[in-house]
Amino acid sequence: MNTRAVILLSGGLDSATVLALARQQGFQCYALSFDYGQRHRFELEAAARVAAAHRVERHITVPLDLRAFGGSALTDEIAVPKDRGDAEMSEGIPITYVPARNTIFLSVALGWAEVLGASDLFIGVNAVDYSGYPDCRPEFIAAFEQLANLATKSGVEGTACWRVHAPLISLTKGEIIRLGLSHGVDYGLTHSCYDPDPAGRACGHCDSCRLRLKGFADAGIPDPAPYRTVA
Amino acid sequence: MNTRAVILLSGGLDSATVLALARQQGFQCYALSFDYGQRHRFELEAAARVAAAHRVERHITVPLDLRAFGGSALTDEIAVPKDRGDAEMSEGIPITYVPARNTIFLSVALGWAEVLGASDLFIGVNAVDYSGYPDCRPEFIAAFEQLANLATKSGVEGTACWRVHAPLISLTKGEIIRLGLSHGVDYGLTHSCYDPDPAGRACGHCDSCRLRLKGFADAGIPDPAPYRTVA
Repeated sequence: MNTRAVILLSGGLDSATVLALARQQGFQCYALSFDYGQRHRFELEAAARVAAAHRVERHITVPLDLRAFGGSALTDEIAVPKDRGDAEMSEGIPITYVPARNTIFLSVALGWAEVLGASDLFIGVNAVDYSGYPDCRPEFIAAFEQLANLATKSGVEGTACWRVHAPLISLTKGEIIRLGLSHGVDYGLTHSCYDPDPAGRACGHCDSCRLRLKGFADAGIPDPAPYRTVA
Repeated sequence: MNTRAVILLSGGLDSATVLALARQQGFQCYALSFDYGQRHRFELEAAARVAAAHRVERHITVPLDLRAFGGSALTDEIAVPKDRGDAEMSEGIPITYVPARNTIFLSVALGWAEVLGASDLFIGVNAVDYSGYPDCRPEFIAAFEQLANLATKSGVEGTACWRVHAPLISLTKGEIIRLGLSHGVDYGLTHSCYDPDPAGRACGHCDSCRLRLKGFADAGIPDPAPYRTVA
């Protein structure tokens, strides 16, 4: 196969797994990251490491400063919640939700893909652990596919049928980790923490660390990433 | 009315007209522009002038460098076509099409609107003069509205029903100009040219200038914007 695909690559566990799956399916992978003023900038370094490890054709990081309109703990001066219980974490839409983030990221991926002559996008959204995020649900993915076919030259001219691949959407974190390990993902290269220390070590207490640690516990293996406290 | 709306404001003739219409409908207007590496940067200065003239609540310009993936005469090193006939201009999708541009712009508008508690977006797309652009058609606008209701916290929680207003979509350029004049738009503040000279004067020959000049001719009034040659 000689088909190109654009992979949204955050540097986290999920998108690294998705990249490995896309490569395994034979796609020529073009990795897209965003510098959107996120607090956890270490994930951009992780994205570069993961892209290199999986030998992507090209990796670009698009600067897109969403701090201009604020509204999220990941980009705004709102404290990142720590040590929330499972009940709290599964309730409603968390403050770490960045308004319209996946819509924006998929839209830019759509533009790059059209330039590349690609019509496959890969995104590591997950409806199980992130049930509170509206843009992590299958209905959202389906609506974006439909939009892509109406929004692009290739869709309108009928030379492409757009597909948004979200292969992790119905998996638990533990299942994702087992799947990734079977496809050679080195999770020591990835970064998930919303609030790392200056050396990039994870806090172990934010929602993202807690989900990740629970995933590794469920998968029955230790997390190879560095933590600043024993988790 | 005390309802907020986000208006995509390019600094061109169409978006200035849309802003005037939104204000006239009683919306508190938040104007959003993009610095996307476009050649015609003078339009950003025009956007600031238009925003001030219509007393928007706030005007932000989001830097979003799409030159990273190229593919359009507006952002890439591809020559802007000049003096094309009407037949050529209405044929197919022009090289000045920026891949997924309106999808990307609406997505960012969606994010800002959600932060503002708004659920109304205004965009100056036009299906008559830009029939070749896939993302200027009513089907595209309808698909984006549907996506917005699935992509956002307010849409999912049912506290908002998103509306993408495209009031110019079925008007000719001449009709747009007459409409804008009746709502007090000063078109001397706007900028449309894809290839202005260093002083910001329009070329009079690119597709955008030709459509604009034809619009003013149809409306029966002279264009107040500066041109570098007598058009």
